[in-house]
Amino acid sequence: MLIVMKPQATEEQVRGVCAKIEAMGYRAHAMPGAQRTAIGITGNQGALEAAEFEILPGVAEAIRVSKPYKLVSREVKSEDSLIRVGTGESVVTFGGRELQIIAGPCAIESREQAFAAAGAVRKAGARLFRGGAFKPRTSPYSFQGLGKEGLEILAEVRREFKLAIVTETIDPENCDLVEEYADVLQIGARNMQNFSLLKRAGRSSKPVLLKRGLSATLEEFLMAAEYILSEGNYNVILCERGVRTFADHTRNTLDLSVIPAVKRLSHLPIIVDPSHGTGKREKVTPLARAAVAVGADGLIIEVHAEPDRALSDGYQSLYPDQFAALMDQVTAIAAVLGRTTAVSAMTRS
Amino acid sequence: MLIVMKPQATEEQVRGVCAKIEAMGYRAHAMPGAQRTAIGITGNQGALEAAEFEILPGVAEAIRVSKPYKLVSREVKSEDSLIRVGTGESVVTFGGRELQIIAGPCAIESREQAFAAAGAVRKAGARLFRGGAFKPRTSPYSFQGLGKEGLEILAEVRREFKLAIVTETIDPENCDLVEEYADVLQIGARNMQNFSLLKRAGRSSKPVLLKRGLSATLEEFLMAAEYILSEGNYNVILCERGVRTFADHTRNTLDLSVIPAVKRLSHLPIIVDPSHGTGKREKVTPLARAAVAVGADGLIIEVHAEPDRALSDGYQSLYPDQFAALMDQVTAIAAVLGRTTAVSAMTRS
Amino acid sequence: MLIVMKPQATEEQVRGVCAKIEAMGYRAHAMPGAQRTAIGITGNQGALEAAEFEILPGVAEAIRVSKPYKLVSREVKSEDSLIRVGTGESVVTFGGRELQIIAGPCAIESREQAFAAAGAVRKAGARLFRGGAFKPRTSPYSFQGLGKEGLEILAEVRREFKLAIVTETIDPENCDLVEEYADVLQIGARNMQNFSLLKRAGRSSKPVLLKRGLSATLEEFLMAAEYILSEGNYNVILCERGVRTFADHTRNTLDLSVIPAVKRLSHLPIIVDPSHGTGKREKVTPLARAAVAVGADGLIIEVHAEPDRALSDGYQSLYPDQFAALMDQVTAIAAVLGRTTAVSAMTRS
Amino acid sequence: MLIVMKPQATEEQVRGVCAKIEAMGYRAHAMPGAQRTAIGITGNQGALEAAEFEILPGVAEAIRVSKPYKLVSREVKSEDSLIRVGTGESVVTFGGRELQIIAGPCAIESREQAFAAAGAVRKAGARLFRGGAFKPRTSPYSFQGLGKEGLEILAEVRREFKLAIVTETIDPENCDLVEEYADVLQIGARNMQNFSLLKRAGRSSKPVLLKRGLSATLEEFLMAAEYILSEGNYNVILCERGVRTFADHTRNTLDLSVIPAVKRLSHLPIIVDPSHGTGKREKVTPLARAAVAVGADGLIIEVHAEPDRALSDGYQSLYPDQFAALMDQVTAIAAVLGRTTAVSAMTRS
Repeated sequence: MLIVMKPQATEEQVRGVCAKIEAMGYRAHAMPGAQRTAIGITGNQGALEAAEFEILPGVAEAIRVSKPYKLVSREVKSEDSLIRVGTGESVVTFGGRELQIIAGPCAIESREQAFAAAGAVRKAGARLFRGGAFKPRTSPYSFQGLGKEGLEILAEVRREFKLAIVTETIDPENCDLVEEYADVLQIGARNMQNFSLLKRAGRSSKPVLLKRGLSATLEEFLMAAEYILSEGNYNVILCERGVRTFADHTRNTLDLSVIPAVKRLSHLPIIVDPSHGTGKREKVTPLARAAVAVGADGLIIEVHAEPDRALSDGYQSLYPDQFAALMDQVTAIAAVLGRTTAVSAMTRS
Repeated sequence: MLIVMKPQATEEQVRGVCAKIEAMGYRAHAMPGAQRTAIGITGNQGALEAAEFEILPGVAEAIRVSKPYKLVSREVKSEDSLIRVGTGESVVTFGGRELQIIAGPCAIESREQAFAAAGAVRKAGARLFRGGAFKPRTSPYSFQGLGKEGLEILAEVRREFKLAIVTETIDPENCDLVEEYADVLQIGARNMQNFSLLKRAGRSSKPVLLKRGLSATLEEFLMAAEYILSEGNYNVILCERGVRTFADHTRNTLDLSVIPAVKRLSHLPIIVDPSHGTGKREKVTPLARAAVAVGADGLIIEVHAEPDRALSDGYQSLYPDQFAALMDQVTAIAAVLGRTTAVSAMTRS
Repeated sequence: MLIVMKPQATEEQVRGVCAKIEAMGYRAHAMPGAQRTAIGITGNQGALEAAEFEILPGVAEAIRVSKPYKLVSREVKSEDSLIRVGTGESVVTFGGRELQIIAGPCAIESREQAFAAAGAVRKAGARLFRGGAFKPRTSPYSFQGLGKEGLEILAEVRREFKLAIVTETIDPENCDLVEEYADVLQIGARNMQNFSLLKRAGRSSKPVLLKRGLSATLEEFLMAAEYILSEGNYNVILCERGVRTFADHTRNTLDLSVIPAVKRLSHLPIIVDPSHGTGKREKVTPLARAAVAVGADGLIIEVHAEPDRALSDGYQSLYPDQFAALMDQVTAIAAVLGRTTAVSAMTRS
Repeated sequence: MLIVMKPQATEEQVRGVCAKIEAMGYRAHAMPGAQRTAIGITGNQGALEAAEFEILPGVAEAIRVSKPYKLVSREVKSEDSLIRVGTGESVVTFGGRELQIIAGPCAIESREQAFAAAGAVRKAGARLFRGGAFKPRTSPYSFQGLGKEGLEILAEVRREFKLAIVTETIDPENCDLVEEYADVLQIGARNMQNFSLLKRAGRSSKPVLLKRGLSATLEEFLMAAEYILSEGNYNVILCERGVRTFADHTRNTLDLSVIPAVKRLSHLPIIVDPSHGTGKREKVTPLARAAVAVGADGLIIEVHAEPDRALSDGYQSLYPDQFAALMDQVTAIAAVLGRTTAVSAMTRS
């Protein structure tokens, strides 16, 4: 059930509706829009009577929602969500006119390696730094990340390079630690339906980057985001990173058609990861261009100062100069769509 | 690296090799076989020198293992693993001549509902009872299970009906609670690559039923089991439950060819879940027959006394009389392969 | 539109309805059943008025058909179709209580090779012989079959071994030649939607074995059969041979759940090809057992007297003794379902 | 086997090598390049001795080719192939700096409908017109095209609007008729492995537009093209049109990563069909932009003057003004990659 308030409804009326909902044992989610406020109701398993709400002051309409997702839907909030990330000098916004580019190595291996990558990507125009401290690996015998030491290196990167930090959290308990250091909590593709982790991320004050699962339908992807929003954290950035198909010329099949599909159904921003989406260095730049052309709100790119020495995913990491070239190309394509990147500003000034 | 001991090697020699491995900072996994003992080494990220081990007393050979899995492999242990489940009167063994049939409702809804299902499946020949107390659901608004109350009902079912209990654990913290009640910890398809949960289950004293992920390759499936074994819990039962494909006449596509493929590569038992594998009641019995015919070590079947009233998955749950008919059919097919079920014994006596 | 005649309708009344349909410019397909005759109408692109037919003598009902397939549907013909194949001593029937096993090499390579395989499979209980004279190959540089010479060898096999001949036709023109020699025209998976070939096969007097395409949905599979029936040839045997998925432990993923799904919707018989369905010799027998257990009406199996010398698909061909063992196993499983094979009769006598 | 001639080799020496190859019973395919000529050998099933060729005058090297495709490979011809299409005023070239945009309705329904679409797409900058006269349809009861009448309408469109004609051929016999009218023979996705049709198209003097099959791997796609080249027709344009996956938010999943993968392996041009690739009108333009951004050599787009009245695929056809907007957007993106469309020229002048 979704309650749409009248444009002239007062804040007090909005609070009154929320109070009524919570008195009934449900959760109210007030979502202020440019024109009017909508209030989502969650926690109800069966049907509610629209009439019970439509008699309240300030209410324009009570709508039964047939789609299984509610809070992520454009029916609840028609304008694009703007997700503010970072603090101080490194604040950036996802979902607006400016595309946000996240770049950095697959895993944090050492302070030296992180700083080399961070310097390169900052210079080329990235404003967010990625790097895993806790790595979910297919094999128990592969490098699992530096853990807390990796997080501390990331904190140094933020201070030194004014880059907001995006790093992965792998379970609810681990989330306590990661959210102390990260500006954005990343939830990986294999954890897209780790519902315990989604709920925990939903109680965090940090924005969440949620990657699509390898065989997730669009509805399952949006429902995973719904888990986070339903716990109260509305700052979710979606990420397409390729799905699993029979095709064997790339590691995954990047499904760029999901970008306009998400834009139609949801107000959340969505970015693309062409590094995992293709798994091959030489395909990253062409697919990054395509992602921007199709309308994505940003990119997340693996960059390593010395890819051949990387402990994980080196074969899909760009060299710094390749990343700089990528930034120039996507900035030019963004301009065709009336959008910008940090490079646009650097060039203008 | 895998150390193969000589047939006549003493226990002391085995302990000596293990001590050497652990002194090097790795983990040793001694796996006694009918003819000889093999010792798996895990924790080594790079290559080890075979020569360093081959000089030790009692060692026949040190083999570099090229497959990414080690402990689950028939190269480490050529005989089928026998996994004992349950205690007292309800002990059963997976992986032997007798097939094990797990049956019960998708979710525990009430004591009355659980008892009705348990009585029916016990009578028809099941020796293990399934039922979820914690349910991973695609939607945050769907029934999430009774939680601890559900586990207590399961404990009553065990006492009352002499059925071993199989129930799902959804995250590492939750595992502490579930392992107090369950005879087998189930890890669901969506958590097959939840590595934190796999590691926690690997430190449990209870056997683990590990379901194949919706888009998991055979190698990824075995590597997920490897995570559990590498922590020291060798009691893993694999489960095929359908993979995601373009085909839309069933909810998932049950991949029965994975059974002989697993049998070839691994010593672990594997069972089949035709309920989730097809998602349609009328297809459960034909596919259960096929699963036994292909060589599975057992089945897990959703049965509900009143499927039309089930809070989840009712459309794929069998009626008690359908389950009894299934048991008779699979028992007859098992006999063709020289195998038995609990019904074989009931019929003979 | 489907016209259901009254149980007591006369043949003259049936002819009257057909005449009316054809006068309107459509095609009438009278399908006599045990209780009553149904008449399918094809060729109408838009809607017809039920009333126009319900006023005719002998008509019980005129039903709008919502599914896109008509003639293949159980709504048109509720009883299983029995498809008679072969002539003289080698007549067999598909779709009845007896399972039919087709066996032989992938391609006809020489008279000697064909005779060696034919002798072996006849002795083991096959009553139909497979072998390609025209081979659709992924590479233009691979062996494309012996052509007409291969067909002549097949004719000799029929005479010598009393085996009905199943062989592939690859295009409409080629069909003129193949139908002179074959008892059953095989249409391969890659040609399942070669509509020109389907139409040509629909005008043949020979039964057709139609293989499911590598990525065909159930509806597309039935629609391909519908093409053949709509041209007047009602003798179609369907064949599941695996679909393409991400799974890489077999060449294709055999989708056995399609058997009960077809049985529910269509009156046509369906068999299984575990040789192409798995692409690996050691998996053929387990999957053959599973196919019979799930309810298939027969099997098609690649057998070669010397698989290691085969010009194509040798790695998935069984040795003669493996095929004989397979026949014994599937005969025992068939008995559990109340069905037989030619081996059942051999054993009894 | 591939013979690489020395840069200074004479035409006579090239002819000498070809004569030798053909005397051995194989086919020689001389492919002149900018620097040197390469000669492909086809028809050999087994291995040839390199030494036999390396002794001939003018030969630099004889290379064993491990990939199953030869003639389509960059190893045979390192420069991009330029495929000239059309005659007189409507000549265009695929594979060069200018992108080629093919547009028009799914099926030719009438002269009036074809002219309306042709006028619109010509004005917006298309230089090639698509429209089916023979339509492969999933259902035998769907509109199958106007046949020869449709071809005659297409011939009128060419004369009237100076548009080169791209239309589908559905079987070898039908190819005789279609090649009289078409400038480009289209082979549809369902016929990608209709080898009889591929061979027939390989003997045509007209260029071929070959669409990727719904579940074709990259290697199978290139091998299908190889069939055409191996018969002597080197003028093949590849086309990505989406593959079949579990994803259900679009009709197919457009696999744009195949574009850089083809470019790496083959000298043939490749275009993209976002209309069939998505099956939804609102996704055609975003994916068309992405296709150009990823590096495709052109597009094929369904445009209908009145989509809501179309006899087939109306829901994925663009309105004329949507197509004009698409042309402007893709022209701007092409410019970023240093490429042009016909609109670039119109704008400049």
